[in-house]
Amino acid sequence: MSEKNDPRITLPPIGTIHSCYVEKFGIPRQSGLVKSATAMLELLPPYDTPDSLRGLEEFSHLWIIFVFHQSMREHPPSSGFPPSPEAMAGQAGVTSWKATVRPPRLGGNERIGVFSSRSNFRPNPIGLSVVELLDVQGTTLKLGGGDFLDGTPVLDIKPYLPYADRIPEATGAYANAAPERANHVEFSPGAERAIQALEDETRPALRKLVCDMLAYNPRPAYQPDDPDRVFGTRIFDLDLRWKQLKSKVTVLSVDPILDACG
Amino acid sequence: MSEKNDPRITLPPIGTIHSCYVEKFGIPRQSGLVKSATAMLELLPPYDTPDSLRGLEEFSHLWIIFVFHQSMREHPPSSGFPPSPEAMAGQAGVTSWKATVRPPRLGGNERIGVFSSRSNFRPNPIGLSVVELLDVQGTTLKLGGGDFLDGTPVLDIKPYLPYADRIPEATGAYANAAPERANHVEFSPGAERAIQALEDETRPALRKLVCDMLAYNPRPAYQPDDPDRVFGTRIFDLDLRWKQLKSKVTVLSVDPILDACG
Repeated sequence: MSEKNDPRITLPPIGTIHSCYVEKFGIPRQSGLVKSATAMLELLPPYDTPDSLRGLEEFSHLWIIFVFHQSMREHPPSSGFPPSPEAMAGQAGVTSWKATVRPPRLGGNERIGVFSSRSNFRPNPIGLSVVELLDVQGTTLKLGGGDFLDGTPVLDIKPYLPYADRIPEATGAYANAAPERANHVEFSPGAERAIQALEDETRPALRKLVCDMLAYNPRPAYQPDDPDRVFGTRIFDLDLRWKQLKSKVTVLSVDPILDACG
Repeated sequence: MSEKNDPRITLPPIGTIHSCYVEKFGIPRQSGLVKSATAMLELLPPYDTPDSLRGLEEFSHLWIIFVFHQSMREHPPSSGFPPSPEAMAGQAGVTSWKATVRPPRLGGNERIGVFSSRSNFRPNPIGLSVVELLDVQGTTLKLGGGDFLDGTPVLDIKPYLPYADRIPEATGAYANAAPERANHVEFSPGAERAIQALEDETRPALRKLVCDMLAYNPRPAYQPDDPDRVFGTRIFDLDLRWKQLKSKVTVLSVDPILDACG
């Protein structure tokens, strides 16, 4: 700890994630759901020595402990007196949080304690995801099944230890079973042509990634059915748009994003 | 983040662990090995509201993300030029680390990368343990199977999600199988009487805890066999002493610790 009597701990990122998910909307709600999503974890100086990864390739899965960097606040929110827990957390420069959250798995209208959830809005903005280790390339790791936003700061990498971490008797309340692939995903003719061209050129597994992402119903749970509403998010450098009618998702377009000067 | 361009993240503890393990020596090398070890996790202000734990009792197991607080350095170690990674980490006021470590499971003489291990001496002193949730008492949790030092600062609590966290196909290199209960534990007549009296008075499951702890061979892996060497550690407010000859451990004494003025 940098100062006596200050119980806070200050941690530098040891790596950065490069991910297909460049916006929060559309990211699967746990790691492992969309296995077609690969990510690269690049170690940062002074941690970027191959020695620190020696023997890692013998593990099939890893824990990644990371920062929910887009769930943090720079400044405390304005608030009345006395300060709310959120404001106090804001004053510590850390994160916005509430004591309860509404998990999408419960339909978005039932509140549970923040520590009974894996919400990203929590007292400390720490994420925990288990990923498949696909490859070690120098000081960069290729990971499968991640749920990381692009640019995510990584605090630690630990091997998944089957004997300790795999708990056969564990039960998980509302999140005991995996979410279903609730949606059937189709492509408009235009989206079909665009995906085909992109797969041929630069993104070999794009169709599967899009199908897997949208199968898990990224819509907010409280969203009423509206067949005309167009949803959109970015993956890689692509702008993805779709509509949804009940459990049928139709991908409308997949367009390269032009930069502001392009 | 408290300052622009500073990628470091500053985290307050959200709770503190009260544990039977008051010294590092003798703590099991993963959570879940010594199930007879229970610990209390007490939430700290402003996080100590029962709301933040609402629904938690429906989960059987939890992840505890914590700080290896006795593995941190106050000041950078002296070093030559250029600074070593350890010194650089020390300058950040965080932790002492090396790129490689020698896990006890490999006999203590083989080096692997720090990120291929769960060593407590790592770039960021973050620990990750899965524990059984035994009870929720207000804003205090009773946990089973923990491997926490007494006074451990807790950064986060997350529910164990079976569908995401329990990975049947995972393989774990040198740590694929659980360590064996390598030792047979016996008690000297004096230790036998002491344990009996303590169990009757204040520590109902003390014998099982001592047996479980010592069965997993807490000795350093590189320790030569020396039948006269007395090992010792503290659990609760007790001073525990034992000898070891090959896989036979003999508990010599279990004495209350008198305070310096006592």
